[in-house]
Amino acid sequence: MASVFPAALENLIDHFAALPGIGRKSAQRLAFHVLSLPDGEAESFAQAIMQARGSVHCCPVCQNLTDGEKCAVCLDERRDKSTICVVAEPRDVLSIERSREYTGVYHVLHGVLSPLSHIGPDDIKINELVKRVADGGVSEVIMATNPDTEGDTTAMYISRLLRPFGVKVTRLAYGIPVGSNLEFADDATLVRALEGRREL
Amino acid sequence: MASVFPAALENLIDHFAALPGIGRKSAQRLAFHVLSLPDGEAESFAQAIMQARGSVHCCPVCQNLTDGEKCAVCLDERRDKSTICVVAEPRDVLSIERSREYTGVYHVLHGVLSPLSHIGPDDIKINELVKRVADGGVSEVIMATNPDTEGDTTAMYISRLLRPFGVKVTRLAYGIPVGSNLEFADDATLVRALEGRREL
Repeated sequence: MASVFPAALENLIDHFAALPGIGRKSAQRLAFHVLSLPDGEAESFAQAIMQARGSVHCCPVCQNLTDGEKCAVCLDERRDKSTICVVAEPRDVLSIERSREYTGVYHVLHGVLSPLSHIGPDDIKINELVKRVADGGVSEVIMATNPDTEGDTTAMYISRLLRPFGVKVTRLAYGIPVGSNLEFADDATLVRALEGRREL
Repeated sequence: MASVFPAALENLIDHFAALPGIGRKSAQRLAFHVLSLPDGEAESFAQAIMQARGSVHCCPVCQNLTDGEKCAVCLDERRDKSTICVVAEPRDVLSIERSREYTGVYHVLHGVLSPLSHIGPDDIKINELVKRVADGGVSEVIMATNPDTEGDTTAMYISRLLRPFGVKVTRLAYGIPVGSNLEFADDATLVRALEGRREL
């Protein structure tokens, strides 16, 4: 049965099937699609993977993904550098930007505290945030981690760490349905969540 | 908004979003997953695409995908070369093999006749099948295209083409629900469909 497809095709199917949310049947469809692409397009797909891996790294200021020296938000002169919005993942930056309400900068944690998954404070970018606040010029830190147990715990932990610096630490209002995911919040809910943020 | 992600990442997301059945959100998740892969694994994914494109081609006998000179089924001495099962797509070979009932060989058409999509007899591998039958040694051709309008039309067209050669042309029994897709048929249904095949 396994020998029906050539090894190189099976290998490509395996790689697609290893992606999150892609089952065996979908992986087959995707692999056949790649084989049927016009000349150059499959090559460009492979190059896109290599280029993204080669050029994308974390912004040294906010830890968001970038391919330049600093990310676009940190480089933007019009953004208010005294307000930092702390999010768990790079895609959450996109969600906040979608609200078109926020004019400050970001800090991407690349995860949340999770004792069950053995993720502690040193495994995510908390020290980088503390250093940023310690360096001064920051008046408010908005905790925008997801409103679930791990997100709340992370927000609470960081707010305690930042207390000595006398900086205002706020949390997004619970306009976002509790237990849900920041990524799927609609624009209106995000606007309300930004407006109704409260001090921790 | 578009500037939130670096260009190389946007490019990778675009490539994932161009795959069938992958929306924008899924494409983002997949791209982030690829960025978070351990060293070497993303490279191996890119290489898998290039290798599959570089090494996989059609078997000169049955037109199934292979990376060798001939495909594994055509090379197998135990397979009955006098019975040819005609399928529309390479993945349909896997479906028939799953039944563990079939011991003959295959012919992959790489499509079905579809006037609406401007796919005529010269756009799929019908001539190759006629040549195979004309070369002799074939006693039965089993038409295993999907039981829908286009699959039925293709089966009927080919059976008429093969009539002059005095070869027996059969069609998979309608154990497979009409209008459904061969790819999703369960094993038991496929066994019954093979057993109940009838002459066209």
